[in-house]
Amino acid sequence: MARALDELGDAWTLLLLRTALLGVSRFHEFEASLAIPPTTLTRRLEVLTAQGYFERTRYDERPPRDEYALTEKGLDVLPILLALSAFGNRWLAPNGAPLECVDPVTGRRLEPVVTDRKTGVHLTPGTVAVRPGPGASQALRRSLPSPVLLGVGGAR
Amino acid sequence: MARALDELGDAWTLLLLRTALLGVSRFHEFEASLAIPPTTLTRRLEVLTAQGYFERTRYDERPPRDEYALTEKGLDVLPILLALSAFGNRWLAPNGAPLECVDPVTGRRLEPVVTDRKTGVHLTPGTVAVRPGPGASQALRRSLPSPVLLGVGGAR
Repeated sequence: MARALDELGDAWTLLLLRTALLGVSRFHEFEASLAIPPTTLTRRLEVLTAQGYFERTRYDERPPRDEYALTEKGLDVLPILLALSAFGNRWLAPNGAPLECVDPVTGRRLEPVVTDRKTGVHLTPGTVAVRPGPGASQALRRSLPSPVLLGVGGAR
Repeated sequence: MARALDELGDAWTLLLLRTALLGVSRFHEFEASLAIPPTTLTRRLEVLTAQGYFERTRYDERPPRDEYALTEKGLDVLPILLALSAFGNRWLAPNGAPLECVDPVTGRRLEPVVTDRKTGVHLTPGTVAVRPGPGASQALRRSLPSPVLLGVGGAR
């Protein structure tokens, strides 16, 4: 998670990826949609392309114009944004959700929650623990000798 | 989601909340666990307390010592962190997950995914749309006259 925060823990990055998930792909559309200076936008799109979130294609030569398509990695940011949006709608939208998720076929409202892929169990505080995985450092293994239950309070 | 990013779209904030979800609650434990200067830590904990993520309690008077318990809002950051962690393990951990989620009873590995609470349907690109909700501004209503399918590419 710390590495995910390194790459994504910056509001601009997630706003750019959200805009792309909403269907924006061309430079001038990002510019219009985000009211961001072009040099800043260019730099941020370069970084996200280098990190593998976007694949850039030139769609016009005179003048040169690029579009940015989400890669598999970029598309996989969707669950993070759905979780953020559900949180925002619950806690930060006193006048109701600005945007709501719906089923594209039926129009029924969807409520994104985080579950275990295999069992479908809703992962809430007290029902999920973490332990060092195969990529854990020695320091992490030492600091977490046994699984830690998430969200159940501290050393009280 | 923009409001959620305003409050949470900063790596330090999410790291503090993650540390709290792992069971840390006392000032000196945060300090030890995050290697953060005490004045910075104090300021960040104040802000998160004012925003309703923590409830502060004085547990010792001489010298004065505070602990910070997650509120319901603070606990509700868990799904965001689980989504970030699943993404990080998939895309940013070439040597394997540093931390993995497990069932606290059976020890079985869990794989957090985002689903619809009612139907359990896995929300992936192309299966979820957004539309303006009750709290949408007029500008947002105008810019999204019909639901937009997420993650299906742009104006191509």
